[in-house]
Amino acid sequence: MPNLVHKILQNHLVAGELTPGSEIGISIDNTLMHDATGQMAMLQYEALDIPRVKTNRSVTYTDHNTLQIGFENMDDHHFLASACRKFGLYFSRAGNGICHQVNLERFSLPGQTLLGADSHTTTAGGVGMLAIGAGGLDIAVAMAGRPFYLPMPRVVKVTLTGQLPSWSAAKDVALELLRRMTVSGGRGTILEFAGDGLAGLSATERATIANMSIECGAFTAVFPSDEVTRRYFQAQKREADWREIQADPDAEYDDEMVIDLATVPPLVAKPHSPDNVVPVEEVHGLEVHQVAIGSCTNSSLQDMLKVARILEQGTVPPEVSLIIAPGSRQVLLDLTSCGALETMIKAGARIVETACGFCNGVGQAPRSQGVSLRTSNRNFPGRSGTADANLYLVSPETAAVSALSGQLRDPRSFGQPVQIDLPREFAVDDSLIVPPAQTNEEVEIVRGPNIAPLPLFEAMPDELAGEVLLCLGDNVTTDDILPAGAHILAKRANIPAISEFIFCKIDETFPQRARQAKTGFIVGGANYGQGSSREHAALAPRYLGVRAVIAESFARIHKFNLVNFGILPLEFVNPQDKDKLSQGEGLELINLHQALQSGGQIIVTDASGSLQVSTVLDVSPRLREVLLAGGTLNHTRKRAGK
Amino acid sequence: MPNLVHKILQNHLVAGELTPGSEIGISIDNTLMHDATGQMAMLQYEALDIPRVKTNRSVTYTDHNTLQIGFENMDDHHFLASACRKFGLYFSRAGNGICHQVNLERFSLPGQTLLGADSHTTTAGGVGMLAIGAGGLDIAVAMAGRPFYLPMPRVVKVTLTGQLPSWSAAKDVALELLRRMTVSGGRGTILEFAGDGLAGLSATERATIANMSIECGAFTAVFPSDEVTRRYFQAQKREADWREIQADPDAEYDDEMVIDLATVPPLVAKPHSPDNVVPVEEVHGLEVHQVAIGSCTNSSLQDMLKVARILEQGTVPPEVSLIIAPGSRQVLLDLTSCGALETMIKAGARIVETACGFCNGVGQAPRSQGVSLRTSNRNFPGRSGTADANLYLVSPETAAVSALSGQLRDPRSFGQPVQIDLPREFAVDDSLIVPPAQTNEEVEIVRGPNIAPLPLFEAMPDELAGEVLLCLGDNVTTDDILPAGAHILAKRANIPAISEFIFCKIDETFPQRARQAKTGFIVGGANYGQGSSREHAALAPRYLGVRAVIAESFARIHKFNLVNFGILPLEFVNPQDKDKLSQGEGLELINLHQALQSGGQIIVTDASGSLQVSTVLDVSPRLREVLLAGGTLNHTRKRAGK
Repeated sequence: MPNLVHKILQNHLVAGELTPGSEIGISIDNTLMHDATGQMAMLQYEALDIPRVKTNRSVTYTDHNTLQIGFENMDDHHFLASACRKFGLYFSRAGNGICHQVNLERFSLPGQTLLGADSHTTTAGGVGMLAIGAGGLDIAVAMAGRPFYLPMPRVVKVTLTGQLPSWSAAKDVALELLRRMTVSGGRGTILEFAGDGLAGLSATERATIANMSIECGAFTAVFPSDEVTRRYFQAQKREADWREIQADPDAEYDDEMVIDLATVPPLVAKPHSPDNVVPVEEVHGLEVHQVAIGSCTNSSLQDMLKVARILEQGTVPPEVSLIIAPGSRQVLLDLTSCGALETMIKAGARIVETACGFCNGVGQAPRSQGVSLRTSNRNFPGRSGTADANLYLVSPETAAVSALSGQLRDPRSFGQPVQIDLPREFAVDDSLIVPPAQTNEEVEIVRGPNIAPLPLFEAMPDELAGEVLLCLGDNVTTDDILPAGAHILAKRANIPAISEFIFCKIDETFPQRARQAKTGFIVGGANYGQGSSREHAALAPRYLGVRAVIAESFARIHKFNLVNFGILPLEFVNPQDKDKLSQGEGLELINLHQALQSGGQIIVTDASGSLQVSTVLDVSPRLREVLLAGGTLNHTRKRAGK
Repeated sequence: MPNLVHKILQNHLVAGELTPGSEIGISIDNTLMHDATGQMAMLQYEALDIPRVKTNRSVTYTDHNTLQIGFENMDDHHFLASACRKFGLYFSRAGNGICHQVNLERFSLPGQTLLGADSHTTTAGGVGMLAIGAGGLDIAVAMAGRPFYLPMPRVVKVTLTGQLPSWSAAKDVALELLRRMTVSGGRGTILEFAGDGLAGLSATERATIANMSIECGAFTAVFPSDEVTRRYFQAQKREADWREIQADPDAEYDDEMVIDLATVPPLVAKPHSPDNVVPVEEVHGLEVHQVAIGSCTNSSLQDMLKVARILEQGTVPPEVSLIIAPGSRQVLLDLTSCGALETMIKAGARIVETACGFCNGVGQAPRSQGVSLRTSNRNFPGRSGTADANLYLVSPETAAVSALSGQLRDPRSFGQPVQIDLPREFAVDDSLIVPPAQTNEEVEIVRGPNIAPLPLFEAMPDELAGEVLLCLGDNVTTDDILPAGAHILAKRANIPAISEFIFCKIDETFPQRARQAKTGFIVGGANYGQGSSREHAALAPRYLGVRAVIAESFARIHKFNLVNFGILPLEFVNPQDKDKLSQGEGLELINLHQALQSGGQIIVTDASGSLQVSTVLDVSPRLREVLLAGGTLNHTRKRAGK
């Protein structure tokens, strides 16, 4: 009898079987992208030459680059708005809110699939969507009506029992999961939530937990769509979009775990990993310099009202900067009309625009060596924009209580828990969501000077001869490959420009050396490409001439991104061979066509043939085809006969 | 019988006589600085070694660098907060608002003097302060209790008669002044307002006009403090701070002009100068991409309520981004409690933090070649952060009406004028203003890694031998010397770092060449150093070894800044001699001590003596002393016996 995940997958299955590890293809009902990933995805969609998107609903949000510190951001917004209008997407304007919050409010559909060009697309699992983050090119291909392929995940049942204690929050459940599973414990799985504990969790609380499932390494998390969900859709004035979807009573799972909610205390993820979780009471008293409340994890009206109730009992001391970014215009409107926003301002909070902002280092960088409490989802070094800041991830309640005291405080020390009343109906107002033009309307796409033409790549040659450009250790992150931050984010539509930042924090001569070498290779250790899903960390190296990464192992999403852009992700047969390769060395890879067709080993040699290193290409036959074509774009165009 | 300006000057005169053109010294009651100019001013104050400020009240505001795109901004905030606490200044925290608006609300004092490290310090003239903008070092010296010196201005009486028509605003009066006087017509003057038209202008409307007096080149503008002013202080709950101050009925002036308010139509300053003023109806229908409402010119509650009343009659079309930045936390609180903020959000406005923001290109840069309507005060090329954007300066009413239509519209086409009710009392709440510590308290100053030690300079040697580093044309601006923008602003506390940007848009080899030459000279044309008052455009070149600028003429504030940092501002006796000097040439200036003492010509020669160029140093004897000492800091320390 199927579990919830299997039910949704079965309804969308177009290739493969639901056997863990084997490749499946699923149809995608809805897509999501934003103004950091959407520019490139849109250029890629354009290159596929499909007049109108073939999804049920595709939406582009303006939420990452709203500071607008140069012309590029607003140029991107106009580009995306005009392309959405032309190609049949909805466009959510700047000021309308964070993609995952707005999607939950206005576009989520229980039982449907959502593919999003952002790793926290998983948030929509809170209302019973199967919602997965992927690279921008994957979203472009899905908009073109093509399936999304993934290795069939194992489904893990997470049974929640009982009720959360006063002052414990959904965020603490997410942190408890990370404490148990670590950042890699969810690999290859989808978390499916169940149990009597669900009844006590609102739709947005469930969304908080689904949001951070990606931090465990899971594909996504899914909650049933039940009476709680129905009431949320009712409050959003779209009960017609609701449908019930539940696992069968006797559903089977690949694995199970149980969390007794009554035992979850207020938790904190200490620097510098979301799984470095301890009870707040263990760090009670730590002096804090900044408290930032918001992000796709914790910016719902429910979160914000609780914060306001706490803040009405004090003011923020001079040493602390309290930032509040409501998650959406709807949340902001409701906060304003009920007086909660005024309460926040009176307490000394700085209200910044409803956007992602501080969460990924676009503004509100803390002071040097500062301590920043955040309700967001990642506390990697440098993510805040300040390299040596210390980020602590907490619930909104813990954040607000701590903001008033200037110290990280266990919220239980604050006194009676705060009570809030959610409105029966939210402030529904879609006037900042621009619908697509009618099918045949002519729309001109607006292209500023930073919107560069999409680079197109050749098919895989039978031989590659080039130079080792860089030798790296283990756990190279996509941040190492291409840093984030407002300045580099502004170049996301411009591959020639952004490629100048590839490996800029490790070796700033890299781009120039790569261009000179024309064809190049990167040597890595274990878990190459961990972290964010940004496809630019594959696309820009490919633009510079990188044709293969030879490593001990790869992080999943980056490996697929490499394939998407025609870069060979090769794994050493003998990891100790890594030491035989050094920067500047000339390498040759021959008979690639045959190796890709047969799935056999690929032998790396030097010009003289004295060096011989065996590697394997551990990808599905379909992905070997993609590599032969020179990447997903070529492959998709070829299949469409273009 | 004295006019208002003479009354205030007479009360503060410590040196000289009130004869136009002769140097006077005046005592400074209050100072103002912010987080773009304050870092350096504070380091300079520290170098003066005075334990506590000697002014009546000195305040530092956090309003320029609140985006915080790197660690530098918040480090600066902590540095300024701790230094304020130690040295006896008030500190206005981030989120509390724009310095000039908050100063008007909470710190302005009719009849007193205010020296501010920002050119729009003039705003406080709206309530009868004599408020002048100057370089940060001037403010540091004033905080140390020393007088401020200026050439005695001519006082121009501006008589306002009658009443503004419906839909004409105080901003239109400011633009009318610019239309008549141009950006240089106010040079050497202070504008003193009078006439029966004053009765119809609120305190904040007067402040709007005083704010933009600097755009005419005037030192400042002053309005009488009258019954209107008293009511404003009453609404601020500080009637005790109010005093009446008026010109004598038969007061005399150096010049006069009359503006019949009834004849002032809605006006607009077209790109790229604030004096490029025409009636709005002449550009009615121009397509706009961005509308930005706020800045120290137009962000009062009165302005914002009018905007809200207009916005409740429509929504912003998809092509337009409407930015609203209320001027202060007080304004934001009042807007929130009366429902006007909700109205703005419902209309589609993006509410950004109460700060300077868009006005000086820190965020909200328009799209490429975009049209941006702004209620701010300057529309120079590039000021918005987008080099090729077109900025139009208008009133809040014109901005709001245009935002709803997507086109620049004469507000008279909108229909009935909007009516607003100002509250009897504003939302007074000073909890984000941190008072100084008690005198003897020990406060440790917090210094992040970007807070570099202040460079100290040697006294003027008798001979200077160096190289011509750059030859430039006429009207070089301080933006040419040192551009603005969020990234460079972040370096304002770090002279070694910011000096790397000197002339970066003209010749990026400049800093390196200057360091190599060790001693260098710049050759300029007429009006060298026009534009913003930023002292870094003198201090950073001095740090790089620039010891003299030889030009046809200088803009006033920059000339004083050069002297402040020990750079000789030399003027060609024969302007055609400019062509005899070329980049890379070696020059010698000899017998400087005698020339500075006597006020005689300074002969510029080459090493062989075959070149001979005569120059003059057209500054007061006091400033020649300053130059001999190697700058104002050395001179002030020397006089204080340090």
